[in-house]
Amino acid sequence: MTKPCIICVAITGSVPRKEDNPAVPISVEEQIESAHEAFEAGASIVHCHVRKPDQTPTADPEIFARLKEGLEKHCPGMIVQLTTGGRSGAGRERGGMLSLRPEMASLSVGSCNFPTRIYENAPDLVDWLAAEMKTYGIKPEIEAFDLGHIFQAVKMAQDGRITGPLYVQFVMGVKNAMPADKPSFDFFVETLKRLAPDAEWCAAGIGRHQRELNEWAIAAGGHTRT
Amino acid sequence: MTKPCIICVAITGSVPRKEDNPAVPISVEEQIESAHEAFEAGASIVHCHVRKPDQTPTADPEIFARLKEGLEKHCPGMIVQLTTGGRSGAGRERGGMLSLRPEMASLSVGSCNFPTRIYENAPDLVDWLAAEMKTYGIKPEIEAFDLGHIFQAVKMAQDGRITGPLYVQFVMGVKNAMPADKPSFDFFVETLKRLAPDAEWCAAGIGRHQRELNEWAIAAGGHTRT
Ligand SMILES: [Zn+2]
Ligand SMILES: [Zn+2]
Ligand SMILES: [Zn+2]
Ligand SMILES: [Zn+2]
Repeated sequence: MTKPCIICVAITGSVPRKEDNPAVPISVEEQIESAHEAFEAGASIVHCHVRKPDQTPTADPEIFARLKEGLEKHCPGMIVQLTTGGRSGAGRERGGMLSLRPEMASLSVGSCNFPTRIYENAPDLVDWLAAEMKTYGIKPEIEAFDLGHIFQAVKMAQDGRITGPLYVQFVMGVKNAMPADKPSFDFFVETLKRLAPDAEWCAAGIGRHQRELNEWAIAAGGHTRT
Repeated sequence: MTKPCIICVAITGSVPRKEDNPAVPISVEEQIESAHEAFEAGASIVHCHVRKPDQTPTADPEIFARLKEGLEKHCPGMIVQLTTGGRSGAGRERGGMLSLRPEMASLSVGSCNFPTRIYENAPDLVDWLAAEMKTYGIKPEIEAFDLGHIFQAVKMAQDGRITGPLYVQFVMGVKNAMPADKPSFDFFVETLKRLAPDAEWCAAGIGRHQRELNEWAIAAGGHTRT
């Protein structure tokens, strides 16, 4: 298989703070610096969360705009993917930055449990986020936290709510959701291939599962996420 | 395989109303009558929802008590399973009837999307319902709406939150959750066997998928649900 391996880098998640890890890039300037290093090392997609000055996650379009602008300037050609994940805001707030027209944005198509709460992605919110992405010509990265989410993404691509081909990220290792399990990972890959042969995919292992998932993804021909 | 096939009958769900189907048993008396017929026809477990006089779902322990008493009188030996599902109430209300000590109760161990909303089973509510079932000596029927729910049930059995062996129901065909898909069904069965070899399982197909799921379950050695 000669297709180039896309490396997707998540420079800042929504959880770690400076107190936990002084190296985590929090300010827009730190994030741009960190993405630039990853870009020079070969990463082609940068998955972005942003924080308020007090380090709490936010979906503030102004902060996203500054980050996007800086990334475009310092990492020309790098694909900017903005998160619409649930930690940064509630409801449609989560998609307020989509009018910035990033090349990609994350899209969760189902709900599941997280370590201490429900990761809420109600059907009408999912449909609204998907419609916004269509409006602004943004390619969604589907966040599949469970098998059913793969089916939901395929259905949405089939009925036109998502413009194909699909780009799916399998997420494993979140407490109370799908653990990092090799037979299940293989079944996810196999199922996506069966239902959407033209789909591309990557995998993200949370915390200590990150290296494991990357190894599985590389061996199975997927993209990787660091 | 000579183990007897357990037939589980759901006499009344939480959705259909008399207007939709005049034959649906709504009152406690109608439900007992209907369960009795199923019992005589060979059903060994009765899965129970209850309704208020206006037909809306409820978790009212008094109505559950009257139903349970009637079932024990008219269907001696039939296993009574009370629902703790999310349509009948919010939060801990859903488990208010567990002090009646039914032999079984349903237990959803994860969240997912339903046709128009999130099926909310937050981690702390799941743990509380499981603890109540332990306190009252009730066997949970795990409702697995997705693959991750099987892993969650196994983890809860391993760390003692659920008393084993597990009894799991695979639910397929709910819009926006796991569809009725044969390879996935096979993988569910295989995964449960791999993780909890002593577990028993049944399957429920929603709406038009009911017959399909029953056929798959019988062929694979599971119990059936009608
Ligand atoms: Zn990715
Ligand atoms: Zn993210
Ligand atoms: Zn059953
Ligand atoms: Zn039920």
